[in-house]
Amino acid sequence: MERPRHQGMVKNTYMRWRLPLVCLLWEVAMIVLFGVFVRFSPEADAHWEEEKREMNLTSDIENDFYFRYPSFQDVHVMIFVGFGFLMTFLKRYGFGAVGFNFLLAAFGIQWALLMQGWFHSFKSGKILIGVENLINADFCVGSVCIAFGAILGKTSPIQLLVMTLFQVTLFAVNEYILLNLLHVRDAGGSMTIHTFGAYFGLTVTRILYRPNLEQSKDKQGSVYHSDLFAMIGTLYLWMYWPSFNSAISEHGDAQHRAAINTYCSLAACVLTTVAFSSMLQKKGKLDMVHIQNATLAGGVAVGTSAEMMLTPYGSLIVGFICGIVSTVGYVYLTPFLESRLHIQDTCGIHNLHAMPGLIGGIVGAVTAAAATEDVYGKEGFIKAFDFTGTYRTRTPGVQGGFQAAGIVVSLLMAFAGGALVGAILKLPVWGDAAAENCFEDDIYWEVPEDEESDVYHMHHPDKPASP
Amino acid sequence: MERPRHQGMVKNTYMRWRLPLVCLLWEVAMIVLFGVFVRFSPEADAHWEEEKREMNLTSDIENDFYFRYPSFQDVHVMIFVGFGFLMTFLKRYGFGAVGFNFLLAAFGIQWALLMQGWFHSFKSGKILIGVENLINADFCVGSVCIAFGAILGKTSPIQLLVMTLFQVTLFAVNEYILLNLLHVRDAGGSMTIHTFGAYFGLTVTRILYRPNLEQSKDKQGSVYHSDLFAMIGTLYLWMYWPSFNSAISEHGDAQHRAAINTYCSLAACVLTTVAFSSMLQKKGKLDMVHIQNATLAGGVAVGTSAEMMLTPYGSLIVGFICGIVSTVGYVYLTPFLESRLHIQDTCGIHNLHAMPGLIGGIVGAVTAAAATEDVYGKEGFIKAFDFTGTYRTRTPGVQGGFQAAGIVVSLLMAFAGGALVGAILKLPVWGDAAAENCFEDDIYWEVPEDEESDVYHMHHPDKPASP
Amino acid sequence: MERPRHQGMVKNTYMRWRLPLVCLLWEVAMIVLFGVFVRFSPEADAHWEEEKREMNLTSDIENDFYFRYPSFQDVHVMIFVGFGFLMTFLKRYGFGAVGFNFLLAAFGIQWALLMQGWFHSFKSGKILIGVENLINADFCVGSVCIAFGAILGKTSPIQLLVMTLFQVTLFAVNEYILLNLLHVRDAGGSMTIHTFGAYFGLTVTRILYRPNLEQSKDKQGSVYHSDLFAMIGTLYLWMYWPSFNSAISEHGDAQHRAAINTYCSLAACVLTTVAFSSMLQKKGKLDMVHIQNATLAGGVAVGTSAEMMLTPYGSLIVGFICGIVSTVGYVYLTPFLESRLHIQDTCGIHNLHAMPGLIGGIVGAVTAAAATEDVYGKEGFIKAFDFTGTYRTRTPGVQGGFQAAGIVVSLLMAFAGGALVGAILKLPVWGDAAAENCFEDDIYWEVPEDEESDVYHMHHPDKPASP
Repeated sequence: MERPRHQGMVKNTYMRWRLPLVCLLWEVAMIVLFGVFVRFSPEADAHWEEEKREMNLTSDIENDFYFRYPSFQDVHVMIFVGFGFLMTFLKRYGFGAVGFNFLLAAFGIQWALLMQGWFHSFKSGKILIGVENLINADFCVGSVCIAFGAILGKTSPIQLLVMTLFQVTLFAVNEYILLNLLHVRDAGGSMTIHTFGAYFGLTVTRILYRPNLEQSKDKQGSVYHSDLFAMIGTLYLWMYWPSFNSAISEHGDAQHRAAINTYCSLAACVLTTVAFSSMLQKKGKLDMVHIQNATLAGGVAVGTSAEMMLTPYGSLIVGFICGIVSTVGYVYLTPFLESRLHIQDTCGIHNLHAMPGLIGGIVGAVTAAAATEDVYGKEGFIKAFDFTGTYRTRTPGVQGGFQAAGIVVSLLMAFAGGALVGAILKLPVWGDAAAENCFEDDIYWEVPEDEESDVYHMHHPDKPASP
Repeated sequence: MERPRHQGMVKNTYMRWRLPLVCLLWEVAMIVLFGVFVRFSPEADAHWEEEKREMNLTSDIENDFYFRYPSFQDVHVMIFVGFGFLMTFLKRYGFGAVGFNFLLAAFGIQWALLMQGWFHSFKSGKILIGVENLINADFCVGSVCIAFGAILGKTSPIQLLVMTLFQVTLFAVNEYILLNLLHVRDAGGSMTIHTFGAYFGLTVTRILYRPNLEQSKDKQGSVYHSDLFAMIGTLYLWMYWPSFNSAISEHGDAQHRAAINTYCSLAACVLTTVAFSSMLQKKGKLDMVHIQNATLAGGVAVGTSAEMMLTPYGSLIVGFICGIVSTVGYVYLTPFLESRLHIQDTCGIHNLHAMPGLIGGIVGAVTAAAATEDVYGKEGFIKAFDFTGTYRTRTPGVQGGFQAAGIVVSLLMAFAGGALVGAILKLPVWGDAAAENCFEDDIYWEVPEDEESDVYHMHHPDKPASP
Repeated sequence: MERPRHQGMVKNTYMRWRLPLVCLLWEVAMIVLFGVFVRFSPEADAHWEEEKREMNLTSDIENDFYFRYPSFQDVHVMIFVGFGFLMTFLKRYGFGAVGFNFLLAAFGIQWALLMQGWFHSFKSGKILIGVENLINADFCVGSVCIAFGAILGKTSPIQLLVMTLFQVTLFAVNEYILLNLLHVRDAGGSMTIHTFGAYFGLTVTRILYRPNLEQSKDKQGSVYHSDLFAMIGTLYLWMYWPSFNSAISEHGDAQHRAAINTYCSLAACVLTTVAFSSMLQKKGKLDMVHIQNATLAGGVAVGTSAEMMLTPYGSLIVGFICGIVSTVGYVYLTPFLESRLHIQDTCGIHNLHAMPGLIGGIVGAVTAAAATEDVYGKEGFIKAFDFTGTYRTRTPGVQGGFQAAGIVVSLLMAFAGGALVGAILKLPVWGDAAAENCFEDDIYWEVPEDEESDVYHMHHPDKPASP
């Protein structure tokens, strides 16, 4: 199906040699680097029987696999189905949403295993990977999926792969600074994943600003069924978020607590989202955009503090606030950002990830600063904040300060990194589409001729119908 | 999109201030009550290290989190995706189905944590919550989702929230009577969830009877893709039902057994559903309504007995019967209930939950009455029915009698409660739609203008097309 | 909706008595056989408390349920949602895809519990079932779902049930030969599930060759939304494949390792699929057929070796190759097989399961042959290949030879079995549709009259519109 492109600058979106080249080169690089560096962690290695004896473990169930694998699978679903389908809301960009998300995430997890491995799992020249590495790789890619939301429909698959390469690298550096140098707690990634990912993506989309984007205005909306597909993404993100925030917490009470706090925050968030969605609309009707997105802000905003003693009512309060902030953001802030700051944010990640991520960082800093041995117990206190070794003498107040510093570092990394990557993506070699062809699958995909699209043409007699 | 409403009583469905008010007030109430009452259970509290020592646990894996969290997530998916998408079968009520289900469940789980907490997890003035409470809250809300199925498309979101408030309360009372006073076993909720929820919903819809509902007849059917969306719901309910029925059973063999029994019952149920769906139709074709619903009856009907020694072949027999009963119900009983008893049951919950729930209660009573120490082993017998303390001397026969009493109590609570709540919902202040606007999303939702709906208008020239 | 069938041979597709008869008879047979043979395994039986003491287990968490149930549920989702929705890509065969898959799998798991039970879990006259049996039953049915892919849209539900009966039987025999007689390792079923299932299905479809199938050419494609439904299937298969390949591996490191290897292979496979999908198309656009299918080949191809020390980079290499092989297969081999060999392979299972399955068998043989005590550790080596008892003295080289023999046996069983079953299905009594009615739901299903189909008729004035 080749429709003539009549107006505007004609762009070369021909992917035939460029895209295969990038995919194959990078995958070969992955194989070489994995060959040199990546091996199994002791718990996944066939020497485990000996290891078990050494570690005095009496049962196979003590393998970390059984503590974390169910959570890993939930996180995996969030990355591929959750983010992928959440972005299918556009009427003619479903293939791109779910397909490109699939592509960038599949590449990103490999590169993340390496980058995070060098920083965190490097032993005698080898990266030793186990289930926790898989979760962290998914987390890292989650930040790319978030950034993808800002530029959805406006970039070529090659641009997405280039962005993934850089963003994963910067993510790993930022994460290293936060977790290792600042000794910050951020198990659910309010700072490392959401704040960093969102402001990174917003910076990129700012630099890629398209002044004529209203030429594809008719394709920026949803249709009835695309909104239902998007709800699949929403619900899986919402349901599995407790697994996300608890997946890499300490065994036992921390995982348990993180799941409960997240569950509570998300529940509260739904009610305030519905309230404000109806309230901010003259006709008082609910807007699917809010239900699909703002209901999730509660999960973002307890990403740092969920494993702490935030308590269920504390979580409700956070969720309550974030549902409001996020919905108000969709109604007032997104149009403002677009018209005044030239930030074209397709999915509204500023409302779903950026602001709630910042709130999450702050809530985490405050919760840490307010921690006492009384609330946590003597051992629990040390375990919760890992106040061991060099950090034995760190106080909650100081920890709170470092947590706050973590927010600032994440923001700086996001702005600097986003600017750099935006500049690279602006080079005219990556095959992105002209403004009037944005949000349209048939630039990069073979799209079936369906009845629906026949109708579409029937109703738009200015566009030539296909045979 | 505002289509003129030409016939019938004009109703005020304007939600702008009422819905936000209800949502915000209730969420504030939740925060206050959680603040006063809800704390972490010892297994989710940071004092767990000390607790572990006291309880002589040698490993973090002994935390209840690892016994139940995977099942919890499966149940969570059933409530939000399972019930939500099962109800998207209507051609123009997909947003309402999945969106209102999301809203009522998110509110319901919070209120259920409190209500069930006061009855079951109340210690020194605090409700201590852990993963088992989360599962029970989902269960409780499940009964509301069932009742929602009867009134689907005919109520405003405010009515649903009011119903949720009352139904959760009554659910908790009924559950307390059954589990604590009658000492009845009902791990998968044939009585507490399905029988209660379904007859409650049927009573409500009876009281809300709409004599002119045929005015919206054209919207009561499905379209091709809406039936596929509904199958997503069906399959997740079907696949995860073994987790549902085993989620709160005793650790070890009971959870294991409950999963196997449920799996067997559901498998058998599919075959008899297909058989009768084809047999009861003149043309011998299969009806999606039956495949979407009656295939699940087998899970409902072993809700009480799955954790008992029902045995795999016993489960097959139960599933076999329920597939037949449920399908026959859809073909003959639903039309009868509507025309003669004025019970308008949108999703046919009488066939999927009410009758199979009753069967489940009876099967449970019989299985309990037939229990012997020979079949269960001496310790297993005591453990299976918790014949300890006051109940040390209870015999299987007596247990069977109490189980049967549990059915009756659930029915009475459902009828009385449903009548009360139905009467409340009949008040003309909740913003429900006129009969000709039932089953239509655009009363309460911003609905995108899609091509499909253009076509729809084209083919219905009596309705004015939108611009 | 009864459209007159004007051309070609009129076939009797009336299911009213035949389908119910088959379903009911077979389900009754299942009940009788379960009644005679099937009981709970000790870990699911109420005598577990005593068993636990005997086995010296200190905790309920040692119950196999907790090692395998999360993986079981993932596999369950793959069979019912994964395979079911993957096949919904056809524009008017979504009900058949997801509904018939549901039917055959629900019957198949029951029969598989018996067949596999007699071979592997038969003790003192009873089949003792636990969670591992449930997984194996799903695996067995997986091979039927694969074969279904080849004949999708061209067979009646009765034919599918007949095929399931025979294929499950033959699967169990083949599996017994491989696992017990040849002592072959095949935890993820590259040979037993994929190679066997795919070549079985291809043989069946060859024998059922329809020379006039181009009469339904217009229904063999997808529409926009059906491709998105299919992506739900794809993603669930892709995400949960690590659970599939690790579900029945030994506790501990083997499960852990199998998950990691599969994850790596699948990630690499996505990139080469995208590369070749774009490269092999003149316009350089991506083809949804490839993304939906070839991205999964990496999971198939490590089915045998995932639990071995294949290593992450080894897995990447396997995934790299299989993405290419599978995509090339879709572009060049499928048309060739249809035109020259008269193999009409609706879903292209030759590219997704047959070739990758063979590769998987070979990779497994080579990985086994290359095993050393150095790499596995002394105990790990014995555990990985179960070199105990009679097999104490078997060397890796010999094991590799037996693995290779396993491929050959699976192929022979598939060809012979497929020929037999194909011949049976060719009998003119099963109610399959005429060539021009293939790939169309309304032969066997009540299909709602939707707007879309009105449009369809509008645009095809030669077909009479329905009232």
